[in-house]
Amino acid sequence: MGGPARFITFEGIDGSGKSTQARRLAEHLRAGGHDVILTREPGGSPGAEEIRRLVLEGEPDRWSAETEILLFTAARRDHLEKTIRPALEAGKVVICDRFADSTRVYQGITRGDLRRTVDKLHALMIGREPDLTFVLDMAPDTGLARAKGRNGTEERFEDFGVAMQARMRAGFLDLAIEFADRCRVVDADRSEDAIAAEIAALIDGVLA
Amino acid sequence: MGGPARFITFEGIDGSGKSTQARRLAEHLRAGGHDVILTREPGGSPGAEEIRRLVLEGEPDRWSAETEILLFTAARRDHLEKTIRPALEAGKVVICDRFADSTRVYQGITRGDLRRTVDKLHALMIGREPDLTFVLDMAPDTGLARAKGRNGTEERFEDFGVAMQARMRAGFLDLAIEFADRCRVVDADRSEDAIAAEIAALIDGVLA
Repeated sequence: MGGPARFITFEGIDGSGKSTQARRLAEHLRAGGHDVILTREPGGSPGAEEIRRLVLEGEPDRWSAETEILLFTAARRDHLEKTIRPALEAGKVVICDRFADSTRVYQGITRGDLRRTVDKLHALMIGREPDLTFVLDMAPDTGLARAKGRNGTEERFEDFGVAMQARMRAGFLDLAIEFADRCRVVDADRSEDAIAAEIAALIDGVLA
Repeated sequence: MGGPARFITFEGIDGSGKSTQARRLAEHLRAGGHDVILTREPGGSPGAEEIRRLVLEGEPDRWSAETEILLFTAARRDHLEKTIRPALEAGKVVICDRFADSTRVYQGITRGDLRRTVDKLHALMIGREPDLTFVLDMAPDTGLARAKGRNGTEERFEDFGVAMQARMRAGFLDLAIEFADRCRVVDADRSEDAIAAEIAALIDGVLA
């Protein structure tokens, strides 16, 4: 139980190594004596996982962008109430694979006005931002190749091609500028160990 | 296809006869040559019906009030996009068993601040109000006895007792004052035929 409670998120394009690095960071912090929960979005609580299935499975045009934002926000609210807040209040470190920034980037890229809708909904129903966000930055074709190499039925958001990945990469980099106080961009075109070492060094500086 | 397109909703406590009167009104309008769709909330489109199941089944405290409002709003947005708007644009009359007013009353009764949240979400994500709303007004014990006489697993909202029904009745009557331009209160403590005749007379005046 060293250091104060922290809410840490990982963001970046598909295949950029968010899940792996989130797990590596959890192992690093646990080795340092921290009580850590590792979670992810969409999902992260039983109710949010059910909403996740509703959003990610089925045809790509099953929901309009607006309905999708509402479902993601409902899942996020449940995740925040049932998993994230209780853990932070118990003094744990929460590491989350994706959070509101993913919704901002994905929807903002689809249509400019949706970014404002996402922000208004976030202000009204979520409120909380992470204390620290690692933006894993990677060439879009590398990320896409990795994402496509994985199995799974939840392919809706990985099926847009390299041009879309490039726009999302730019979206995450813009977001890191917009929220510069909490975002750290990490070059993810390197070995898993090199990336994990940089993140561990960054976090040790913050939690020291 | 006589008359302009209209969006008509039925509101009131459980057991007040909304579904029956919505069906009777649809029959009346069809007999008069109108093209009518009869729909309901939560639900009314394939996606919204799936969200309905998520909200109405399971334990009463499965979702917080805030998450529930988000899920209802997501279902309403889908219903509006996929069912209500296309029908209105095709010149049809849309009759809907419950709409946003139900969310206003149910959540507003639970906690005063939730009513403001419902209104903000409605303004941001739904926008559309009905053209005409019939508020079926009935003594709470009569409504509760009727609602409990029905079968079904979706009992979460009918399980609150007569005190809650009384507060909801008052909530719907307040709403009829707040939205006096579109709401008509109908005494539902009468025979089905008498209520249907009053509603038919009211609608014939409006659509004439």
